[in-house]
Amino acid sequence: MTVDLYPIPGVRLAATSAGIKQGRQLDAVLIEIDSGAQVVGVFTRNAFCAAPVQVAKTHLAQQLPRYFLINAGYANAGMGQQGIDDANACCQALAKLMDCKAQAILPFSTGVIGERLPVDKIIAHLPKAVAHLREDGWAMAAQGIMTTDTRPKGISQRIVWRGQTLTITGIAKGSGMIKPNMATMLAYLATDAPVSQPVLQQILGQAVQQSFNRMTVDGDTSTNDACMLVATGKAGVESVDSVEHPLYKILLEAIISVCRSLAQQIVRDGEGATKFVTITVVNGHSEQACLQVASTVAESPLVKTALFASDPNWGRILAAIGRSGIDDLLIDQVSITINDVLVAEGGCRANSYCEEQGIAAMAEDEVVIVIDLHHGTQQASVWTCDLSEEYVRINAEYRT
Amino acid sequence: MTVDLYPIPGVRLAATSAGIKQGRQLDAVLIEIDSGAQVVGVFTRNAFCAAPVQVAKTHLAQQLPRYFLINAGYANAGMGQQGIDDANACCQALAKLMDCKAQAILPFSTGVIGERLPVDKIIAHLPKAVAHLREDGWAMAAQGIMTTDTRPKGISQRIVWRGQTLTITGIAKGSGMIKPNMATMLAYLATDAPVSQPVLQQILGQAVQQSFNRMTVDGDTSTNDACMLVATGKAGVESVDSVEHPLYKILLEAIISVCRSLAQQIVRDGEGATKFVTITVVNGHSEQACLQVASTVAESPLVKTALFASDPNWGRILAAIGRSGIDDLLIDQVSITINDVLVAEGGCRANSYCEEQGIAAMAEDEVVIVIDLHHGTQQASVWTCDLSEEYVRINAEYRT
Repeated sequence: MTVDLYPIPGVRLAATSAGIKQGRQLDAVLIEIDSGAQVVGVFTRNAFCAAPVQVAKTHLAQQLPRYFLINAGYANAGMGQQGIDDANACCQALAKLMDCKAQAILPFSTGVIGERLPVDKIIAHLPKAVAHLREDGWAMAAQGIMTTDTRPKGISQRIVWRGQTLTITGIAKGSGMIKPNMATMLAYLATDAPVSQPVLQQILGQAVQQSFNRMTVDGDTSTNDACMLVATGKAGVESVDSVEHPLYKILLEAIISVCRSLAQQIVRDGEGATKFVTITVVNGHSEQACLQVASTVAESPLVKTALFASDPNWGRILAAIGRSGIDDLLIDQVSITINDVLVAEGGCRANSYCEEQGIAAMAEDEVVIVIDLHHGTQQASVWTCDLSEEYVRINAEYRT
Repeated sequence: MTVDLYPIPGVRLAATSAGIKQGRQLDAVLIEIDSGAQVVGVFTRNAFCAAPVQVAKTHLAQQLPRYFLINAGYANAGMGQQGIDDANACCQALAKLMDCKAQAILPFSTGVIGERLPVDKIIAHLPKAVAHLREDGWAMAAQGIMTTDTRPKGISQRIVWRGQTLTITGIAKGSGMIKPNMATMLAYLATDAPVSQPVLQQILGQAVQQSFNRMTVDGDTSTNDACMLVATGKAGVESVDSVEHPLYKILLEAIISVCRSLAQQIVRDGEGATKFVTITVVNGHSEQACLQVASTVAESPLVKTALFASDPNWGRILAAIGRSGIDDLLIDQVSITINDVLVAEGGCRANSYCEEQGIAAMAEDEVVIVIDLHHGTQQASVWTCDLSEEYVRINAEYRT
C-alpha cells in the first residue's frame, strides 16, 4: 500500500502471529471497538456458510460487537458442529480475557476449507494480541488477514463537513474465489462519523452493491465472505439518523468510494492476474441486463485467456455477449471498443479497425472494454482480470 | 479412434485439404446425401449466430439437403453481410458444379471468429472434394473437421431388428468453448433406417438433450454449433413414421448412445484436459435442480484446478454446491463421494474419511463425483474435465 491509512478514533487493531501459518507470518488480527459504536455487516450468500459466519451473524443480532477476532490460514468451513464449537471456544476465551460477553465478539476465518481450526493456537495468542492493540494498526491488520493475496489492501478517505473532518478507513483481503455477491473476501471499514444503525446498514448495503458485487476473478463465491462497517461516532458532528440528513449522501458517496477502491485492489491482486479489466456495458434496457452481459463477458475463460495473451480476439467477446441470455438482444447493433479502439460495430468487425490497433490496445496493463447494446439508456460496469497459467498453478498448489 | 466407422448406404464423404490450414492438413469436408433422405438439425442457441448457421437454417427450411459443405480454420462469424455473402458464394459454386439448387447445400464453418472465410480456396477445392466422395469416408471426415481437437471423434452402432441390420454412424469435433446448450461443436450422424422428418427431429432433440447438453469444458457456448442427423432409409425396414412405431424406442436409444459417446469423446479431448470427470447429483427435487448443481460444480475453476492437482479439496465442491442457487438446499444433508470414497456427509468431512483415500481417488484419470442432496428422488449427470495450465496456453496462443 502506498497510501496512508488514517486511524479512526474508537478503533484499535493488532496483527500478530498466532503460529497458524508457517514461520512468523502475521496470521491473526484483533480489532477492538469502543462501546457505543454502531456496527453493521454483510455476509456471504453461499448456502454453504462457514461456522464463523454463522456465529458472527448470531452474535451481531444479539448485541453490539466490541471485538472482531480474525484468523487467516483456515476457513473453519465444512466442519459441522465441531466448527461452531471451535468458533465459540475462541470467542469465549477472548470474552473471559476482556471481561465481556462472548456475544460481543464476532469471529472471522479465511483460508482452506474442511480442516479444523487451530483453536489452541488462537486462544494462546490472545494476550499478545490484546497487548498489541493500537489505533494506527490498520496497515499491519491489512497484512494479517492475507491468504493468497500478494499485497495488503487498504484505503483512507477524509471529508470535511461544516468545518469538521470525518475519516473513513477500510482494509480488505481477497484474491481468488471472487465473484459478485461477495467473494472470498473479508473487509473491515470504520468511520468516526456518528451514524444510526439502520442508516449504517443501508449505507453498507448500497456500497457493497456498487463495489464488491461488481468484481469477479474466477466466478467462485466463498463460504466465508464478510464486510463489516463500524461507525464510532467520535467525530464532533450530529448523528446521521436518517437518509434525509444533509451528511447522508456525502458519507454514502465516500464509503462507496472506499469500497470501490478496495474492490479494485482485490481484482488487481487477482490470482495470477496480469491485467486489470473494466467491462462497461452501455445503452441497455436495464442496469440488471447490462450487469448480466458484463458479468458473462468478465467470466468467460476464453475472453480472459485472450486478455492474458493480449490477443484482440473480439469474436470471443461477441460470443459471450450472445450467450448472456438477456432479452431483446440485437446482436447486429452491438459495438465494442477496447481502450477506445472501435473493434466491432453492427455486430461485426468495424470497417475502420485494423489488427495492429487492437493488439496495441490489448497490450496495456489496464484494459477498458465498452460494449454498446444500442437499445436502451442504462449502464453498468464489472471489474475483472485475465486468466493466466499462474492462476491454475496457484489453485492447483494451494494446499500442497 | 480405435473403433471402426461403418458406412451408411446413401451417404458419401470426402475430406481434403483446401489449403485453409497451413501445410497439407485436412481442412474441408464434403458430405453427399442421396435424394430421398430425411435430414434434421439442431443449432447453437447463441444469439450471436455465425453466417453459415444462418444460411444452413434458411436452406434447411426450404428444401431437403443434398450436401453438407464444411470447413475448419475459420468460423465465418462476426462478419456481417460479408459472412452471409461468402457462405452463399460457396453454396452457389457447389450447386453449379453438382447441378442442384444452392438451397440443397448446408454450409458449416468452425475456427477463429471475425476473420474472412477464404472463399476462393474453398471454391477451388470443390472438384477435388467431389472426386474423393466415398461411403467409407467417415474416419477421414472426422479428421477433416478438427480444430484444436487432438484426435478425431466417431462411433458406429448396429442394431438388428426383425432380422435386418440397421447402422448409425456419427462423427464430431469439439474441444474448447464447450458447455451445455451445444458448444463449439459440429456433429454429423447418419442412419440407414427410414424415419419420417418429424420423428427424426424428435429423436435428435432428445438425443442432444441427453448428451451434448450434458457436457462442459469451459462454460463458453459457441456461435457455430450444429448437430445434423440424416436418415437415408436404405435399410429394408418399414418407415418409422410415429413415436408409437415399435422401432422408435430402439432407434432413439441407439442414437442417444451414439451422441453420448461423441459427447464424452469431446470432453475427454477437452483443451488441456488430463482427467475425465463425471459429476452425478442424486436425490434432488427435480432433474433440473440436479443439473444446476452438477453444472455449477463442473464449471467451478477452483474445483477444476483441484482436479488437475489431484487434490481432494472437497470444500471447493461444497462451496460450489452452496452457490448453485437451487431452492430448498439443505447443505447439512449433503454427502459427497469421489470414486466411491465418502469424503463428506452431513455437509462436512465424513468421520470415516482420511486424506490418503481422497488423494488416491483423485489421482485416477477418470473421476466420478457423486453428490447426494438427500431431499428428493431425481438425478442428473454432467461430464467435464479438469482445468490445467495447458488450457490457458492453448487459448492464449490459439491465434498466434
